Amino acid sequence: MSVSLADLRGRDQALFSDGCPTRVVLDHVMGKWGVLVLLALSDGTQRWGVLRRSVAGISEKMLASTLKTLEGDGLVARTAYPEVPPRVEYALTDRGRDLMTRLIPLVEWVADNADDIVGGKA
Amino acid sequence: MSVSLADLRGRDQALFSDGCPTRVVLDHVMGKWGVLVLLALSDGTQRWGVLRRSVAGISEKMLASTLKTLEGDGLVARTAYPEVPPRVEYALTDRGRDLMTRLIPLVEWVADNADDIVGGKA
Repeated sequence: MSVSLADLRGRDQALFSDGCPTRVVLDHVMGKWGVLVLLALSDGTQRWGVLRRSVAGISEKMLASTLKTLEGDGLVARTAYPEVPPRVEYALTDRGRDLMTRLIPLVEWVADNADDIVGGKA
Repeated sequence: MSVSLADLRGRDQALFSDGCPTRVVLDHVMGKWGVLVLLALSDGTQRWGVLRRSVAGISEKMLASTLKTLEGDGLVARTAYPEVPPRVEYALTDRGRDLMTRLIPLVEWVADNADDIVGGKA
């Protein structure tokens, strides 16, 4: 790990500047839908319709936009097969799989603790 | 770790139901400002003004709302000292520190890879 938390601070002690690459990518992978789409793909290659069902509540438009962002980040690869009807599949890239080694432990912590956290508010 | 990714799926193979505790807490801790406020507190107890400067670009209103959410989740503790002028400090709770053991490795990965990811789009 070559970057420590201290390194994340700029000269002004701010945590990343607004609009710096780290913040941009954090927004992509930690946004509500980004996390869920990445998790759905962590099971392996998926077709559009399967992804749509896996990520309950996502709209067609939001799924398309989330996949496009993750594809642009080199985290997800899209493969279109010239068939009738057209078949399009999505999969994690090597970079995406590497990210998941960090993202999954966090999501597991949240899943383990969510009932206590939400229940504690009653 | 008692919850696996497979366990996160419901009977309908959806990844968490919409509005289930895991999604609610994911939104809190993975939202843009939640992550940054938690990171700022991972250095130790902080006063309001220091937090505000650490999280560059956050508004007073958004900082107040983010702290309130994290306090409600039992991740952050607020201590008000009866002084003039009043002094208010924020710190991670034990639960918050436990979360950071999962969140920091993810943020470090993003910081390590963000330049490549954003640069790759040029």
